[in-house]
Amino acid sequence: MPSPHTTTTVTDVTCGPIEGSSKQYRAVGGMRVPFRRIALTNGDHHDVYDTSGPYTEYPSADDVHDLRTGLPKTRDVWQRPAPVTQPDGGRASTQLAWARAGVVTDEMRYIAAREGFDPEFVRDEVAIGRAVIPANHRHPECEPMIIGKAFAVKVNANIGNSAVTSSIAEEVEKMVWATRWGADTIMDLSTGKDIHETREWIMRNSPVPVGTVPIYQALEKVKGDPTKLTWEVYRDTVIEQCEQGVDYMTVHAGVLLRYVPLAANRVTGIVSRGGSIMAAWCLAHHQESFLYTNFRELCEILRDYDVTFSLGDGLRPGSIADANDAAQFAELRTLGELTKIAKSYGVQVMIEGPGHVPMHKIAENVRLEEELCEEAPFYTLGPLATDIAPAYDHITSAIGAAMIAQAGTAMLCYVTPKEHLGLPNRDDVKVGVITYKIAAHSADLAKGHPGAQARDDELSKARFEFRWVDQFNLSLDPDTAREYHDETLPAEPAKTAHFCSMCGPKFCSMRISADVRAYAQEHNLVTQEDIDRQIAAGMDAKSDEFVAAGGKVYLPVVS
Amino acid sequence: MPSPHTTTTVTDVTCGPIEGSSKQYRAVGGMRVPFRRIALTNGDHHDVYDTSGPYTEYPSADDVHDLRTGLPKTRDVWQRPAPVTQPDGGRASTQLAWARAGVVTDEMRYIAAREGFDPEFVRDEVAIGRAVIPANHRHPECEPMIIGKAFAVKVNANIGNSAVTSSIAEEVEKMVWATRWGADTIMDLSTGKDIHETREWIMRNSPVPVGTVPIYQALEKVKGDPTKLTWEVYRDTVIEQCEQGVDYMTVHAGVLLRYVPLAANRVTGIVSRGGSIMAAWCLAHHQESFLYTNFRELCEILRDYDVTFSLGDGLRPGSIADANDAAQFAELRTLGELTKIAKSYGVQVMIEGPGHVPMHKIAENVRLEEELCEEAPFYTLGPLATDIAPAYDHITSAIGAAMIAQAGTAMLCYVTPKEHLGLPNRDDVKVGVITYKIAAHSADLAKGHPGAQARDDELSKARFEFRWVDQFNLSLDPDTAREYHDETLPAEPAKTAHFCSMCGPKFCSMRISADVRAYAQEHNLVTQEDIDRQIAAGMDAKSDEFVAAGGKVYLPVVS
Repeated sequence: MPSPHTTTTVTDVTCGPIEGSSKQYRAVGGMRVPFRRIALTNGDHHDVYDTSGPYTEYPSADDVHDLRTGLPKTRDVWQRPAPVTQPDGGRASTQLAWARAGVVTDEMRYIAAREGFDPEFVRDEVAIGRAVIPANHRHPECEPMIIGKAFAVKVNANIGNSAVTSSIAEEVEKMVWATRWGADTIMDLSTGKDIHETREWIMRNSPVPVGTVPIYQALEKVKGDPTKLTWEVYRDTVIEQCEQGVDYMTVHAGVLLRYVPLAANRVTGIVSRGGSIMAAWCLAHHQESFLYTNFRELCEILRDYDVTFSLGDGLRPGSIADANDAAQFAELRTLGELTKIAKSYGVQVMIEGPGHVPMHKIAENVRLEEELCEEAPFYTLGPLATDIAPAYDHITSAIGAAMIAQAGTAMLCYVTPKEHLGLPNRDDVKVGVITYKIAAHSADLAKGHPGAQARDDELSKARFEFRWVDQFNLSLDPDTAREYHDETLPAEPAKTAHFCSMCGPKFCSMRISADVRAYAQEHNLVTQEDIDRQIAAGMDAKSDEFVAAGGKVYLPVVS
Repeated sequence: MPSPHTTTTVTDVTCGPIEGSSKQYRAVGGMRVPFRRIALTNGDHHDVYDTSGPYTEYPSADDVHDLRTGLPKTRDVWQRPAPVTQPDGGRASTQLAWARAGVVTDEMRYIAAREGFDPEFVRDEVAIGRAVIPANHRHPECEPMIIGKAFAVKVNANIGNSAVTSSIAEEVEKMVWATRWGADTIMDLSTGKDIHETREWIMRNSPVPVGTVPIYQALEKVKGDPTKLTWEVYRDTVIEQCEQGVDYMTVHAGVLLRYVPLAANRVTGIVSRGGSIMAAWCLAHHQESFLYTNFRELCEILRDYDVTFSLGDGLRPGSIADANDAAQFAELRTLGELTKIAKSYGVQVMIEGPGHVPMHKIAENVRLEEELCEEAPFYTLGPLATDIAPAYDHITSAIGAAMIAQAGTAMLCYVTPKEHLGLPNRDDVKVGVITYKIAAHSADLAKGHPGAQARDDELSKARFEFRWVDQFNLSLDPDTAREYHDETLPAEPAKTAHFCSMCGPKFCSMRISADVRAYAQEHNLVTQEDIDRQIAAGMDAKSDEFVAAGGKVYLPVVS
């Protein structure tokens, strides 16, 4: 496996624990499954899923991680089951092939422990193609994770330099930074120079699966002219990236020649880069897309590495006006056909989705995708619920993302405040990831994902009990929560004060409520049955008791 | 009418047009109905609803507005129809009374022109209580607006100083600032000193309806001890505020003594300030709430001024765990009874709603509210779709807000990034308002509000045609959109460049799509029928034509 060129110096990535947390591991059959433990001031703790890799193991932010050595190649020592013969006749060493053969892999066991499911359930979801485990054999540094509607909704963060701006060092830090805040996968969408080397640095240091869009690099190889692309250039690029360890690849094989005119009258035409590259090629050559005509050979290549297909929606809508139109759904139908082919080769598949969709048209996207693509995991970009708020598209799209995830989308591709305007910087990446963790978690709650609400309850209890530090540390972004609090009430005693800046010390609804509860507990009115019993017993209320207690609220008989 | 004390100097409010726009008025029967005209670089323009009052009329940001004179008392010269006898026997001069009597008021005509509806439709929605026009006779500076599910979803911004921080000057500027960015109403929730004077400055200078929660000021009058509250103190406070011109008032008359124990076992008890004040009072006195027992007298007072009830949800859930529980819905049932009483007095009513609600429990809130409260306009605070993201609660709540508005909520109370942590500053107010305009507009799109999509289409067209300046100016926040763009590509030529920083100049999906369309238009392939006709005619494609044209994409025959 190649190692990063030593000519590039990339050392400055963020290390050290997240405020109030410590990185921990759970031993599962010889494997170490990571999680993050949030310590609470009441002596308790709350554990959460962790995507941050070894970077948060360092005791302090002053520690320096040497990226040149790369992360430990943990998965290299795990069991790799024997290949399994596939419907197409070939043999596959993929999670899908093993799952269908009834084999529970180490990756499945790891994921089961990580998400709190039975390993057999994980295997079953992978076997029917409703979940994927993007884990290239050549990315042994990766901590396995699963993408599927039965599991916690996942978030992808796009990074990557462009022809205009940004450096390798910045992109590696963005990867570390994005996973620190909860990105479950990252996509390297670099389009400028040094694509191979940037990716190498990222691959060797990424604890999460890495996705790419190989057509971007192929286009660089033909000097940016889409009409010069050939299957051979593309195929060699795919192999190069498979060798490097890319875990999933976006392939716009559904942009067929006959669909292109369907996009001509759209308000925003074709907005997918990959989609427009392939449209330009098809039109120039008046031939069917080489991705489509060579799709079976592509399946064989991806199968060799267990790279997962992310079938791209090259004709996704780029505006509210174009949502759910003929072009979009024609392509989706083709992606459904390709899904069946890929699975017959034992290759894992997920399906990419929009884009820009008004709220009332969101559910239809999931329904159709599930119907046409055999419930392959849906992986959507937002969607943005309106077009009118550039600079706030992390928010316009979080609305759509939460709703589409509730409807069944398995992974959400984040959108940053810079969407449509520029390249995200480090701050934008964080805001994008946190915003999408909100959307994903909101959907987990709405879907009743086991255990999802525990964190909400823990934080709300902390809030109610004025445990400010716990409220900060239980939140998705402890640093910003604390900073905002301190803007109004900076003094350290305010963190333990039984009031906040909204009402001030004299009157506080939270405190009055706490008084209501304290009284109820003193009087054994803890459950609803207790209250009903007291009412039935006709216990008389003594209002002077309340006044005498100096303003403490007491619980009355229900009148 | 009292005028602001001249001892306080409040001069520094934001004036001047929004970037790329000019304030305009449409003459409607002697009235001047405001709107904002966005000039486009292609010579066209796009008009949008405007809430900013005369402040955006000033030609530049350097102009100084003298707040001491107050805004023009425009409505004082409008027609006021004769009072109408009500079911309770009294006589009412309210929009509801007139609407039910078949009278179309000037306010209704103004609103009809402002929103693009027929005046008779406006009257009808008000008559059946499905919409309210909060417009106190003593707030003649107000530009009338309507809150109802048939109309554009509205946004309220809360301002107000607290016992801990902020000054009168800051609060007045927050009002001007919030309405500049689109707040349809503001609520003055001041709890500290100078409540009366702060409100006076706000009332005399506010172009939008102002809401309050009178119990906050009443509490100040009894030195912050809820048990010392009396009906008389409260009533006098309400009259004082009615006289000042407050347009709608939150009244927590549904917090009944018998409901309080229902909140004792909640994760977050009673989080509404007004709710906990009344709970504390009920418990201390072991009497039914004086707001409930004196509700009819309150109706008579509000009727005299045409002040609209905003029946408060004092038992709203403060956490995901407490959503849609017995306490919340018991109170809602009582609010339904009070709605009928208020309407029998000819008083307009809207109903406040949660709070914190997971996505799958949102629709039930609207369904029940409409069933129990005769479709009185629903006015909700978010709701937050998860508890785990303090510092991002404008986003957690925008998800819930968009969904609840799609389901029928008429007005959304904004939430700022400081929610749960501190008092919003000027920047927070803007972020809160813009975020909620996104939620409201997304819901307008989903509900098919007439004309809502025109702005999305206009902006998307500008984006597709690389009219960067138009894209900025059509957005909800032109300043930030431009700033984000300039971070990556600051040079002025980049604003007219046919590329952006995402892909760089060499390759751009938008440009390729534009090429597809240009070709289609050159070849008369504009409508889908044109394309179908070409296909039917078997027009042969000439791929070399594309290559010869130097990379321009051409539209092929469908194969």
